[in-house]
Amino acid sequence: MGQDFVPTPRTRLRRRPQRGHFDEATVFAILDAAVVCHIGYVRDGQPVVTPTAFWREGRRVYWHGSAASGALGAQGGAPVCFTVSLHDGFLVGRSGFAHSILYRSVMAFGTPTTLTGLDEKRRAMMAFLERLYPTRTQELRPIRDEELRQIVVMTMELNEVSAKIRPGPVVEKEESDYALPCWAGTIPLATVVGAPIPDERLAPGTAFSPSLVAYTRGERLEDALTRSVRSGDS
Amino acid sequence: MGQDFVPTPRTRLRRRPQRGHFDEATVFAILDAAVVCHIGYVRDGQPVVTPTAFWREGRRVYWHGSAASGALGAQGGAPVCFTVSLHDGFLVGRSGFAHSILYRSVMAFGTPTTLTGLDEKRRAMMAFLERLYPTRTQELRPIRDEELRQIVVMTMELNEVSAKIRPGPVVEKEESDYALPCWAGTIPLATVVGAPIPDERLAPGTAFSPSLVAYTRGERLEDALTRSVRSGDS
Repeated sequence: MGQDFVPTPRTRLRRRPQRGHFDEATVFAILDAAVVCHIGYVRDGQPVVTPTAFWREGRRVYWHGSAASGALGAQGGAPVCFTVSLHDGFLVGRSGFAHSILYRSVMAFGTPTTLTGLDEKRRAMMAFLERLYPTRTQELRPIRDEELRQIVVMTMELNEVSAKIRPGPVVEKEESDYALPCWAGTIPLATVVGAPIPDERLAPGTAFSPSLVAYTRGERLEDALTRSVRSGDS
Repeated sequence: MGQDFVPTPRTRLRRRPQRGHFDEATVFAILDAAVVCHIGYVRDGQPVVTPTAFWREGRRVYWHGSAASGALGAQGGAPVCFTVSLHDGFLVGRSGFAHSILYRSVMAFGTPTTLTGLDEKRRAMMAFLERLYPTRTQELRPIRDEELRQIVVMTMELNEVSAKIRPGPVVEKEESDYALPCWAGTIPLATVVGAPIPDERLAPGTAFSPSLVAYTRGERLEDALTRSVRSGDS
């Protein structure tokens, strides 16, 4: 049983409050179904939005970047907006204005910090690999210190957070529109896994890895990720 | 034959410049394969990143929101960062640091303006519908003026723009890593259309609409969208 996040003036939905969700279960489920977030930060007065992979541990999110790059709000100590969105389909209405999209999103405000020690950076990066590919770190050579020195790992506490969900069905603004002889409904979308493609330089005789078995052709990414989280927890 | 965008200090890639692209064809292809962008703007000194549907016409992008909401940089006249990203798969390496994601992204800096007249708002919203569902506007009742008054339509010129693409294959940092007996390669991802679901209140006997035929089960969203753009051009 998760706790709720407390709405603030920045996270409370000004319109359609019924689409807002503040419980951990809803927020975590959206984050755990996603791979990429969009980090917004201010650089020289200009907003910058950078897509990057992220992962979650409890009420914390993590992402990483190159130490040589100033991107991703890597300066640390500056406020960011962390946004995740999943596009689940099209809502097709009988009137133009009833057309919409099905989505789930999470928005979090906060100030990230950078991990400083090599040990905590190593632990975080291994957790990231394990999140996507459970047991993968047992299949790989150890991460080297010099590799960890080349990256910045950022973390932010989930505190000021909201989820927003637009479910179906189509909502017509005028009752009379429902009678129009025009097809209306939902066109679902899903991110689906394709057949894995072995690297051209794969060592001869190398088998597919047990850590990757969740990613089978035709599987929904979301289901593969959720299974990964589950098996990673056990 | 498209023109190139001119790199600026904000759009030039500081690292791995070979991943940066400034030609119209590459930028437009990424934008036309996407439905959702992430708009970053500054509100009371705080960065805010909002996902929303967008569309492109030539060197302009458009998005819309509710007139009652302050979201989406709808204040107008303030700088935004407009970012689109597509996640095409996982790159799975033989070492932890060779793991990465396949992506295509576009980042544009600019200052959007709001459309003011009802006629230009109507034209824009019809173009949005036609972009997703060619000939859809012929199937719908006309958009009413009062509906247009409830929304804000924003537009921004594409001028300071870059695309960034991370293609395969896996790149190991150390040559010796290629010999490790560990599976490596690409796990592709694609957004795929599911079977359309008729609305529960569909008028009896209503057939599926010609404007929606690009969205057939199992089709890649990107292909459906591209076909829509093509047929919309003809």
